[in-house]
Amino acid sequence: MNMERKPLILVTNDDGITAPGIASLVEVARKIGEVVVVAPDSPQSGQGHAITLTSPIMFRPSNIFEGITAYECSGTPVDCVKIAKHVILKDREIDICISGVNHGSNASINIIYSGTMSAAMEASIEGIPSIGFSLLDYSYEADFSASKHVASVLIRQVLNKGLHDCKLLNVNIPKLPLEEIKGFKVCRQGQGNWEEEFKEGADPRGQKYYWLTGQFIQKDEPEGTDLWALENGYVSIVPSGFDLTVYPAIDNNKHLEKT
Amino acid sequence: MNMERKPLILVTNDDGITAPGIASLVEVARKIGEVVVVAPDSPQSGQGHAITLTSPIMFRPSNIFEGITAYECSGTPVDCVKIAKHVILKDREIDICISGVNHGSNASINIIYSGTMSAAMEASIEGIPSIGFSLLDYSYEADFSASKHVASVLIRQVLNKGLHDCKLLNVNIPKLPLEEIKGFKVCRQGQGNWEEEFKEGADPRGQKYYWLTGQFIQKDEPEGTDLWALENGYVSIVPSGFDLTVYPAIDNNKHLEKT
Repeated sequence: MNMERKPLILVTNDDGITAPGIASLVEVARKIGEVVVVAPDSPQSGQGHAITLTSPIMFRPSNIFEGITAYECSGTPVDCVKIAKHVILKDREIDICISGVNHGSNASINIIYSGTMSAAMEASIEGIPSIGFSLLDYSYEADFSASKHVASVLIRQVLNKGLHDCKLLNVNIPKLPLEEIKGFKVCRQGQGNWEEEFKEGADPRGQKYYWLTGQFIQKDEPEGTDLWALENGYVSIVPSGFDLTVYPAIDNNKHLEKT
Repeated sequence: MNMERKPLILVTNDDGITAPGIASLVEVARKIGEVVVVAPDSPQSGQGHAITLTSPIMFRPSNIFEGITAYECSGTPVDCVKIAKHVILKDREIDICISGVNHGSNASINIIYSGTMSAAMEASIEGIPSIGFSLLDYSYEADFSASKHVASVLIRQVLNKGLHDCKLLNVNIPKLPLEEIKGFKVCRQGQGNWEEEFKEGADPRGQKYYWLTGQFIQKDEPEGTDLWALENGYVSIVPSGFDLTVYPAIDNNKHLEKT
């Protein structure tokens, strides 16, 4: 990072540009550097790494954050990052991308489904150090004061000291007052899963519909995982990437080569 | 697998139930076991791991494959797998999920954006052995004859011998006649990336729009990667998972714990 200028901070999310979570990130980021917001114009939870291929996307300036350059975009969270990088900030160097604060956990397997984390991941694929922040509180009225402190500390550390061997952090914050948070744990992705069901109903014309619901099942998680850290009052920080190879399985499935 | 009955094979894709690629998989799978198709009712390329949370989804029987139980679903590829597992095949054991054949490569970083691979991954999260198949030909009129041979061999091998240390294979097939394909390589995800741009235009009301385009950039890839295998005439098979942790980065970013 060139320290002679203020760092350029790209802020995005998946809950949409009007969500309180992104406002809390903007509030933190504007004290650290120059902020540009490019966020979805509507809620996009669960969009994963979706991109818009079969239709165009649009964006327009937003005055929602006083004194901050902001755009709302019709695309997915990943589209927002692509538009920011390749159109809006085309000729500039983005020093860090921060995404969130998500209303709800993105620990464990949730990283796969999360638009918040996918937006941050997209920036990391472009080589930009990126952090996705999520608070373990789904409520719209969630208290983001601890999250703001955590974000402020981590954004400054990543800008000053960099990230090693990865470009992306999945940061989850327990639903606790700041003074009860025990600290930060750099850890691995835990192994919870969703026990899902579909709520059945009928539309006004009598056609059956199915609406996804379910609950997150957390097994006894060992120390060293994000789920353990959160359960024990720590902020979890998982260095994350986009190589999905299961390395030990390469040698152990060589039998598939014999045709 | 219980060998006393025919294996139950769930077939899905992201190009939609009418795409030639899924027809080729159904043709292969029906010779091996009992086939149930649950696929999107419209093209869903680039949907990644998107799920539908804020609206219900619907499905209805389709007669598109003669003699085969098939449903078209309004949701994303991942939704299709969830509906298949938790509603349509709720009381049955799915022996394998196959997704594709995708019209176009899902090698390297493309796995992240791919609805085809995300559908297969969702099944693997549910513990079902799964394979995503993709042919390196984007054309609707692509020749799937080599893909059918590859799928037939791999589905049988996975049903008979199982997968070791993973539940998901990302299989890409070069655009070559079967006799020119040199064999199968079990390998790791390569490191290509997209060089993207947005095509700018204006809608009928004069508002600017942006449409994603770009080209895949493949560096000199070493042997052992999917990109190398495909470049050299092999089918690539990458054992894949959903743990995004970058393990070496855990210890090397412990400085972030000091707050």
